[in-house]
Amino acid sequence: MTINQRDGKMKLALQMVSGYGGEFKTWRMPGAVADAYTNMDYYVENAKMAEKGKIHTLFIADTPALPNDLSTNSPMHPMDPTIALAAVARETSHIGLVSTYSTTYTEPYNLARTLKTLDIISNGRMGWNAVTTSNHEAAANFGRPLPDRDTRYEMAQEHIEAVQTLWGTFGQDAYIHNQETGEYVDMSKVELANYRGKHYQTRGPLPIPASPQGQPPIFQAGGGDKGLELAGRFASGVYANPFTKEDAKLHRMMLRKSAEAHGRKADDIKMFAGFMFSIGKTKEEAMERRYMMQQFAPKETAHHVEYLGYMVGLGLSVDTIDITKPLPQGLINQMYPSPMDPRSEKAFELLKTGMSVKDVLANGVINYHPVVVGTPEMVADFLEEWYLADATDGFSIVPDSSHDGIKDFVELVVPILQERGLFHTTYEGETLRDHLGVSYEYGLTY
Amino acid sequence: MTINQRDGKMKLALQMVSGYGGEFKTWRMPGAVADAYTNMDYYVENAKMAEKGKIHTLFIADTPALPNDLSTNSPMHPMDPTIALAAVARETSHIGLVSTYSTTYTEPYNLARTLKTLDIISNGRMGWNAVTTSNHEAAANFGRPLPDRDTRYEMAQEHIEAVQTLWGTFGQDAYIHNQETGEYVDMSKVELANYRGKHYQTRGPLPIPASPQGQPPIFQAGGGDKGLELAGRFASGVYANPFTKEDAKLHRMMLRKSAEAHGRKADDIKMFAGFMFSIGKTKEEAMERRYMMQQFAPKETAHHVEYLGYMVGLGLSVDTIDITKPLPQGLINQMYPSPMDPRSEKAFELLKTGMSVKDVLANGVINYHPVVVGTPEMVADFLEEWYLADATDGFSIVPDSSHDGIKDFVELVVPILQERGLFHTTYEGETLRDHLGVSYEYGLTY
Repeated sequence: MTINQRDGKMKLALQMVSGYGGEFKTWRMPGAVADAYTNMDYYVENAKMAEKGKIHTLFIADTPALPNDLSTNSPMHPMDPTIALAAVARETSHIGLVSTYSTTYTEPYNLARTLKTLDIISNGRMGWNAVTTSNHEAAANFGRPLPDRDTRYEMAQEHIEAVQTLWGTFGQDAYIHNQETGEYVDMSKVELANYRGKHYQTRGPLPIPASPQGQPPIFQAGGGDKGLELAGRFASGVYANPFTKEDAKLHRMMLRKSAEAHGRKADDIKMFAGFMFSIGKTKEEAMERRYMMQQFAPKETAHHVEYLGYMVGLGLSVDTIDITKPLPQGLINQMYPSPMDPRSEKAFELLKTGMSVKDVLANGVINYHPVVVGTPEMVADFLEEWYLADATDGFSIVPDSSHDGIKDFVELVVPILQERGLFHTTYEGETLRDHLGVSYEYGLTY
Repeated sequence: MTINQRDGKMKLALQMVSGYGGEFKTWRMPGAVADAYTNMDYYVENAKMAEKGKIHTLFIADTPALPNDLSTNSPMHPMDPTIALAAVARETSHIGLVSTYSTTYTEPYNLARTLKTLDIISNGRMGWNAVTTSNHEAAANFGRPLPDRDTRYEMAQEHIEAVQTLWGTFGQDAYIHNQETGEYVDMSKVELANYRGKHYQTRGPLPIPASPQGQPPIFQAGGGDKGLELAGRFASGVYANPFTKEDAKLHRMMLRKSAEAHGRKADDIKMFAGFMFSIGKTKEEAMERRYMMQQFAPKETAHHVEYLGYMVGLGLSVDTIDITKPLPQGLINQMYPSPMDPRSEKAFELLKTGMSVKDVLANGVINYHPVVVGTPEMVADFLEEWYLADATDGFSIVPDSSHDGIKDFVELVVPILQERGLFHTTYEGETLRDHLGVSYEYGLTY
């Protein structure tokens, strides 16, 4: 399918991070909520704002370990995704709820139970981003060495199969609860799972009824051949991290082919490309926002200067250059974009224009996702360009700071996308599968 | 300590079961909510009613398996205790939230994280009933044979130690989040757990701050020497199932001694005796309620007639006796209370009075806890008698049906207990530890 048309079907997921934002010093900004990590009211408030903007789904990344040094940085993950989503499920009505859970460090029965319960209480809005977890700190929290990559992917396939099998054990119309006849459950429609994998076994049944979407759709985030295979087999949504439109387009094409190779429809897998933004009324205002972040992070800025040098083949340091100025022409002449980092091309182009080092960094060339620092129109332009190029089905958006970044996106960017006919003006239906436009599933289907 | 005085300190826990009640056919009663199992609004409503009655804590029993045949019975456990408590935590302000989690079938890191997060979002109202799980169906859901009892208790001690150690890894005043200075966490106060047991190992840290009560208190429910030992070591609350006042008194005394043997204060362990009730404005009205339950359960009633016979040394069957009549004098003369079942004495006494078999059963002689079928005064009398006899610190109450049983207890029984000076009229404080009157704890303290 080509989507090269203004079809209003761009999908958007909002990354909730830990309650703050994707830039880990923005908790210090004026107006930011200092205790957002432990403040569930605030978390729910942000979710409601996203729902107001008809964002398709929230997304929570997670690793069961201390994610980063918290001396001066806010955390990468919430206290506990399950608790956050349970709260949000009760206090919103439409927005999807996708969270990350490890296939290496959870038990299929416990996870199947929790996710299906969340799916019930949210009326069919839950999704599971199934990740293998490659983090040694996480492994140590479970007292086991990290399995090798092949084993982890073998475990992932079994885990998802076990969970989906458990989900299917309770017949879709088994929950009778008829007070007249006294039949509570039609036990002839409740079956054992009897799942016997090499790594995971579970007997079942799991006594929880089907939600309006059947069962939570699977999301996937890992790269490589194994990630692609797992996504093609199970995923309704994929979080991808391409830095260029071309990479995104290629990744999306491969995902669609992988789905088809597993007997599924290509349209049943939707790609979300990671995207960050810092919004201002003007480009200058947006840059001021970034300068503030740099000011909060002098050490990181010094490291970024060095890394920026590496990206263009130069040895740069805050001790030897004035970062508020353009690079001297001599250095500019020596530059070349490093083939080792896909972000180098953009860094190279910006430095070549004579932009100061500080400004190049403020434009977000070293972020984990592509970044737009600018006006709402500039943000919308980026999304439109990738979307209309068939590079992605949508985006997983990361505000720099939650305290105004979500509101700004919803109130300033969403209306532009809607006016341009790129983004829906109302939710497609009631469930996450409705929003995604993917097929109903119940039990282990692939 | 003797509590033989009207000190207003009787502790009450409400068993939430699966959302219905402790009698598994009452979901059919007029006014009962047929889909209570999947209806989170209703679950929260019941929790609010309990809070209105100043009940100290909710209690959720749990086993990770299909708990019972659901053909005509409502379930014994909620869909997922964590999701239920997260919802209730957000929508109540004072009542405690105690749930059961297995020490055999959960991972310490995952559980520690979830419980501490619930403790944060409830402002210090969470408790953990740590059970070893002795159920073979549960074991099969995790693909492992059930460890023997000794091993399970060894695992339980390690699991609780691991969880409490993880809880203590994040210093009580480590969460700085000072926007001026930029210090987010004082990392010098964040330590590794490095817990290395035989069954469980975890490295930590767990990056979640202390709640107002430090960390969730531990509850314990298992019997026997090993249960007593575990309770004495860790528990702030114990769910006990004595059928007689004398057994309760003995159990409480042993719990207090066990706490002292572990270097703790006897008053830091509070016993909750299981108790069921069916309330009517008159004894007759209460009996009508029980007749309705019998009518919903003809097969169970037939089994109960046989078991009642066993309890008094008779072979009884619905085919050979008229259950609406007293037993013939000849049978009454042959009766003796079976020493094998502590409930036999009550059954024997009631049958001896010439009460019909049906009525003896309707009085709840075969229930899992002592039962009062009668007026609010009669319920209060029972609680008063045990409490003033130092037989227990309080009760874990189980309404026959949630749809009016919780309301009746709160509106009819609680005021009587308060008038008699047995029960508090306002919460002692803000946290579950405040309500229980037990010491603050943080980290592994015993």
